[in-house]
Amino acid sequence: MSLRPPRQFVFAGAACLLAMAVTRVQAATDPLPSWNEGAVKARIVAFVQAVTDPTGKDYVAPGARVAVFDNDGTLWTEQPIYFQAAFAMDTVKAMAAKDPALAANPAIAAAAKGDLKALGEVIAITHANTTSDEFAGRVRQWTMTAQHPTLHRRYTELTFQPMRELLDYLEANGFSTWIVSGGGVEFMRAFSQEVYGIPSERVIGSSIKTRYEIRDGVPVIVRLPEIEFVDDKEGKPVGIHKAIGKRPIAAFGNSDGDFQMLEWTTAGPGARLGMIVHHDDESREFAYDRGSHVGKLERGLDEAGARGWQLISVKDDWKAVYTPQK
Amino acid sequence: MSLRPPRQFVFAGAACLLAMAVTRVQAATDPLPSWNEGAVKARIVAFVQAVTDPTGKDYVAPGARVAVFDNDGTLWTEQPIYFQAAFAMDTVKAMAAKDPALAANPAIAAAAKGDLKALGEVIAITHANTTSDEFAGRVRQWTMTAQHPTLHRRYTELTFQPMRELLDYLEANGFSTWIVSGGGVEFMRAFSQEVYGIPSERVIGSSIKTRYEIRDGVPVIVRLPEIEFVDDKEGKPVGIHKAIGKRPIAAFGNSDGDFQMLEWTTAGPGARLGMIVHHDDESREFAYDRGSHVGKLERGLDEAGARGWQLISVKDDWKAVYTPQK
Repeated sequence: MSLRPPRQFVFAGAACLLAMAVTRVQAATDPLPSWNEGAVKARIVAFVQAVTDPTGKDYVAPGARVAVFDNDGTLWTEQPIYFQAAFAMDTVKAMAAKDPALAANPAIAAAAKGDLKALGEVIAITHANTTSDEFAGRVRQWTMTAQHPTLHRRYTELTFQPMRELLDYLEANGFSTWIVSGGGVEFMRAFSQEVYGIPSERVIGSSIKTRYEIRDGVPVIVRLPEIEFVDDKEGKPVGIHKAIGKRPIAAFGNSDGDFQMLEWTTAGPGARLGMIVHHDDESREFAYDRGSHVGKLERGLDEAGARGWQLISVKDDWKAVYTPQK
Repeated sequence: MSLRPPRQFVFAGAACLLAMAVTRVQAATDPLPSWNEGAVKARIVAFVQAVTDPTGKDYVAPGARVAVFDNDGTLWTEQPIYFQAAFAMDTVKAMAAKDPALAANPAIAAAAKGDLKALGEVIAITHANTTSDEFAGRVRQWTMTAQHPTLHRRYTELTFQPMRELLDYLEANGFSTWIVSGGGVEFMRAFSQEVYGIPSERVIGSSIKTRYEIRDGVPVIVRLPEIEFVDDKEGKPVGIHKAIGKRPIAAFGNSDGDFQMLEWTTAGPGARLGMIVHHDDESREFAYDRGSHVGKLERGLDEAGARGWQLISVKDDWKAVYTPQK
């Protein structure tokens, strides 16, 4: 009797070994290559090791490894205006060009010339009274063509490469990653899978009311011009609780709109991680915090230390800022 | 040179082969043993094969394999009253026993004697003004002790074994399974993982408003006595769209409250599955449809055939009704 297995077993075994070897190589490779070595990167890695070590006191079962990320200013740039505002302005200009009645509306005429004061009205006109499918198509069309005014890239090419690596690293370690943003949920869902690898069901955001209707025999979801939920500040823990029903163990934000999300996340028992992207790199991105018209960061700066939250310095902690263009 | 691999390669290969063999045995085993052979079971299996066959015209990528299930009357029994109503009545009795002022309230006194007319008030008293954590604890405590009045089992032991097998079968085939119920989302989330293997983030239900608060320095989610969303009838597609952001390809219900969910699901392109549990087994469970005080099924009965939805007969299609007691 020989120990040698039949030939096809050897081949199957070799294929399995190859898979095992690839896994080992991946584990040995730095999962966060766009992060500089330092206290921030070390803390992220130590946290992930702590909650995934089944023999450690801080072990967390995979189903409870929930990590939440703000979007604007945390996963992609938010200057000079929120990208969703740019979408609304671009859309209303296109609508006004085709519709003289709309162009005659003073608020819309002002907005079409770039006046942000009319933004509320513009969003009402561009975001409602469509079906959800139409709206998603409009957003996707815009992301394929519109360009950032100063960085001259498509908006979806202005995602932060270090944060995308972090999303992948957490997913590879059994986390579920969620977007929790003040931005519109249907706006973000139009590209979240393609851009971040985050499926629509893991995107939490602000929303307007919707209604189920049969139009010409076809069921549709219609977007109504009425705000339903604002997923910002105290709204973020509420939005997380509504959608997930469990408390995250890690939270990443960049502004005071994320304060309560970090507070809620890090107040839980066991190992917790709260981090704030601090925009301090004027040459590669933008530099702003206190008093900024978007992404204002004041309370977070003042209290991060005492609360055990760590600032991520764009200048010092990120080797690269943007995802390389394809 | 020999083709024989080093000894440890052979062992690793054998371990892999064992894993492959186990997978093959599982595939050969009937995944739906509590379903009688017949048109319903055959249709479920054919649908799953069609959407998972990467060479077939009806193939659906795993991320889009979304299946939605009503809870009351679809995954567990809903007679003689919704189990959440039983929870509310039991809870108010216990509260009234400790609180003379509450016991003196005529509506509560009536409810404590079993009068369902005061149920709205009872739910307001028993479901709100607690933190979410306290409420979940109360529900879990109740499920561990309360007994169904005629079937003499704990309520969470009154889940339908064929439907639990169906949930597992779909999950094993790359589906994500969701509960979409008129019941309270926080009520169901207290036991969905343990009872159905469905995590809290995949439970969609009716909700009351909540607020984020700091109480004695501790952040909490507080339940408010105000209805936020009713996840029933036209509300079901809306709730699905809010939480998932994509249209399901399979839907299972049992009453006219599920009509729009089945309509929305099956109106999409490609292979679709819509099924209605028809409660026609008075000896093993309950028999009801038209005119029932819970789970009324009229339009669904009238239109199922024309819409391509299939009725699941409890009497004929289910070999066993309830999950065996441990």
